[in-house]
Amino acid sequence: MGYRLGDLAERVGARLVGDANCEIDRVDQLQSAGIGAISFLANSRYIKYLAETAASAVILSPELAERSPISALISDNPYLCYARIADILHPQPPFQPGIHPSAVVADQCSIAEGVYIGPCSVIEVGVSIAPGVFIGPGCVVGGGCSIGRDSRLVAQVTLCAGVTIGERALIQPGAVIGSEGFGLANDRGKWVKVPQLGGVTIGNDVEIGANTTIDCGTIKDTVIADGVKLDNQIQIAHNVEIGENTAIAGCAGIAGSTKVGRNCTLGGGVGLAGHLEIGDNVHFSGQTLVTRSFSEPGYYSGNLPAVSNSEWRKTIARIRRMDDMMQRLRALEKQLEALGIEHRPG
Amino acid sequence: MGYRLGDLAERVGARLVGDANCEIDRVDQLQSAGIGAISFLANSRYIKYLAETAASAVILSPELAERSPISALISDNPYLCYARIADILHPQPPFQPGIHPSAVVADQCSIAEGVYIGPCSVIEVGVSIAPGVFIGPGCVVGGGCSIGRDSRLVAQVTLCAGVTIGERALIQPGAVIGSEGFGLANDRGKWVKVPQLGGVTIGNDVEIGANTTIDCGTIKDTVIADGVKLDNQIQIAHNVEIGENTAIAGCAGIAGSTKVGRNCTLGGGVGLAGHLEIGDNVHFSGQTLVTRSFSEPGYYSGNLPAVSNSEWRKTIARIRRMDDMMQRLRALEKQLEALGIEHRPG
Amino acid sequence: MGYRLGDLAERVGARLVGDANCEIDRVDQLQSAGIGAISFLANSRYIKYLAETAASAVILSPELAERSPISALISDNPYLCYARIADILHPQPPFQPGIHPSAVVADQCSIAEGVYIGPCSVIEVGVSIAPGVFIGPGCVVGGGCSIGRDSRLVAQVTLCAGVTIGERALIQPGAVIGSEGFGLANDRGKWVKVPQLGGVTIGNDVEIGANTTIDCGTIKDTVIADGVKLDNQIQIAHNVEIGENTAIAGCAGIAGSTKVGRNCTLGGGVGLAGHLEIGDNVHFSGQTLVTRSFSEPGYYSGNLPAVSNSEWRKTIARIRRMDDMMQRLRALEKQLEALGIEHRPG
Repeated sequence: MGYRLGDLAERVGARLVGDANCEIDRVDQLQSAGIGAISFLANSRYIKYLAETAASAVILSPELAERSPISALISDNPYLCYARIADILHPQPPFQPGIHPSAVVADQCSIAEGVYIGPCSVIEVGVSIAPGVFIGPGCVVGGGCSIGRDSRLVAQVTLCAGVTIGERALIQPGAVIGSEGFGLANDRGKWVKVPQLGGVTIGNDVEIGANTTIDCGTIKDTVIADGVKLDNQIQIAHNVEIGENTAIAGCAGIAGSTKVGRNCTLGGGVGLAGHLEIGDNVHFSGQTLVTRSFSEPGYYSGNLPAVSNSEWRKTIARIRRMDDMMQRLRALEKQLEALGIEHRPG
Repeated sequence: MGYRLGDLAERVGARLVGDANCEIDRVDQLQSAGIGAISFLANSRYIKYLAETAASAVILSPELAERSPISALISDNPYLCYARIADILHPQPPFQPGIHPSAVVADQCSIAEGVYIGPCSVIEVGVSIAPGVFIGPGCVVGGGCSIGRDSRLVAQVTLCAGVTIGERALIQPGAVIGSEGFGLANDRGKWVKVPQLGGVTIGNDVEIGANTTIDCGTIKDTVIADGVKLDNQIQIAHNVEIGENTAIAGCAGIAGSTKVGRNCTLGGGVGLAGHLEIGDNVHFSGQTLVTRSFSEPGYYSGNLPAVSNSEWRKTIARIRRMDDMMQRLRALEKQLEALGIEHRPG
Repeated sequence: MGYRLGDLAERVGARLVGDANCEIDRVDQLQSAGIGAISFLANSRYIKYLAETAASAVILSPELAERSPISALISDNPYLCYARIADILHPQPPFQPGIHPSAVVADQCSIAEGVYIGPCSVIEVGVSIAPGVFIGPGCVVGGGCSIGRDSRLVAQVTLCAGVTIGERALIQPGAVIGSEGFGLANDRGKWVKVPQLGGVTIGNDVEIGANTTIDCGTIKDTVIADGVKLDNQIQIAHNVEIGENTAIAGCAGIAGSTKVGRNCTLGGGVGLAGHLEIGDNVHFSGQTLVTRSFSEPGYYSGNLPAVSNSEWRKTIARIRRMDDMMQRLRALEKQLEALGIEHRPG
């Protein structure tokens, strides 16, 4: 099913340059698109493809409006505009509600109308599932969990007991929510488990990536606020709180009881130590290790990017040579002092 | 069900200050506790909550005994004392033994009395399961595995063939034990798989976190000794051996054939290269990269914590400028030498 | 069942030194082997075990041929030779084809002869499975997937909709392929999902480790070429392309749209930023952070390995002291300049 380009422009609030009647039925990349496709250009390193594209239309920023050889939608945020149009052209296909005969649903559950529960999924005692929820194959929903309207557990998702999921959540396969965290007291060399009694509260519009893990709280809940987006393979320890609209890239880890503010971003592989407080609008670049609280908005980093091995060996040698340099510097200063030469600040 | 505070003190060996008849029915945080709750203070950054708490009692270290406005249990290790009391007040609920009709148990298995096997779990040929074992929903236990008394596989745990689990293990969802590791020989650019023929031996009282992976050995078993605690998302490669009571935080990775001693701790995200030998009582801080063996007990580190991006750019520039500094230093030394000024050690 | 050592030598193309009639029935480590076992020595740190081994035979490099007290197979690549012999002595046991009654296979699937589908596995609509494929217990194969001949999904593997797997793939438990990646456009502080419309294409002879995740492409497919080997807990983001025979160690992460060439190796925990182009034969050591493209073959690094905490504190202090050193150096230069001493290059 196609759409008129003019209609799309109107629906997403973009400025149309070109043929409003041009019919669009799909999105595609600039370099592979053909008739009927709309593409976009958000990353300037792909501009070389614009001149030669066979797409029917393209989404561009105002600066590039004049360089388009084809019909264009002009938007201050081409990527956002693209997201909206892709969603119109390729909506999530609807599903047929129902509980697959191989699914196992325990007693005392409240399953609303319009819910799908897939093959070999297990819903334990006392679970509450709101209308429009999709639970794919092979999921486990532990006792007493609650899942809000229109949320989607793609497949093989595990919710342990006592997890609350808001509305419109999207949880990818292999995610584990509500596992018992690393609470250990040391008794003369042996570890004694600290009971993990809390749950997890997930807000609305949260995305959780594949194989991401979120531990339950020790006493109260671990809290993921509305609009938080978690990529794959992230580890969120017990008692962590993550503020609204914070986005965390893959392989990041947050240790116990740390609070992250709103609208933060954590790059891939970032590690936050425990018991920290990170303010709003704080951004950490990839693989940064964070060992203290940061309350001020801003950009923070802490890693040495890859160089050639020979350069790298030099870097390590330089750092080790610094004590020697400092001593030689002091010796020179003393010699000059001994000469009676007056000190002048550099 | 409540307990007299005096009875709790006796059971955990703490000194009671205050009302022995005070009734306690739950644990809670200082800042949210009410009547009937016992709380604890182990981390001094939360001391501000002590004066105002509405808890009925609190667990404190001897130094803080006098600052408590309420009844207190005094312990040299308040966190351990808390763990014990939480376990008394909130014991793991007992389970009803039985094999769910949707579980699939193959031939030649030995399933003891008092075992639970949950919905959609699969037990393959020749598995041996001891009394008191709990296997939650969606688990897979591969052929020939053995699981010791009172162990608990929470849900969606995978044991591949040939895994031996000791007693009282606690394994969180998504953990994979006995997968085939990264054994590859190179044949003129192409990789040839090295058969992975060993198993995994897990001792008693081991905890394994959500989505943690432990590969089987290449010829002999990968070995996790008694009392080891593994957090979430840890990767343990083939032939690794981990000594008793070592605790490893989330996202750490240990490459093949490395041996870690007893009572070690690895912080979150620590990476150990392969074929290393780490002694007893060795501690690595978070995200440290370990590329050589460490036999001496002690604390080791290797990462540059986050600073502001501007500071960070300076740090990188400084390191690159060191060669220039060294050359200028040498030039100055030569100039002074040419002046005939005698050298005096700094 | 045993093999004559002479026959093994011939099958793997190794030079025999010693008794061709020696019977070999298994592989073992030098230090634990007995009669009937063949061992190997590829890592010189284990040479101490050679003199005392009770193995019947050993695989050695030419340099060590003369030091063997027992029959030996001499190979320029002892580890490869070992891999081949282990595969002869311990072949993967054959499986009995069939679909377990608890497996759920949807309509419009094409399941070839000789396929095994294990208990509680779920095959969704329109899946195509070639002869010889083994799908272990608890797997989910999403709609429209295709799995090539002789591929093996060990257990609890998830393929989301639209994944194509080549021949002879080996996929370990907990791996998730085709999950929707981290595509987010920002709308005045709130994140809007970018539909992820592509699939994943996996070539032939690919291995994918336990709990590794590979996201589907945004428009086109994420591509893993023939012969690629991925260890456990790796994260491959949307639109990534990995070239033939590249091997990636555990816990590495590759951000969106990055291309990695052929015959590369990434050490454990390596992180590649998004939109990079990495050429062929590029090698990154463990935990290296890669923030720019590398087109030249070579070895690259970027991390500071563990030292004692006291040494580490010094390192950080040294780096911070560099500005001070530079200023003092400048001051000395000016002083000497003021003395009228001529500059001589270091």
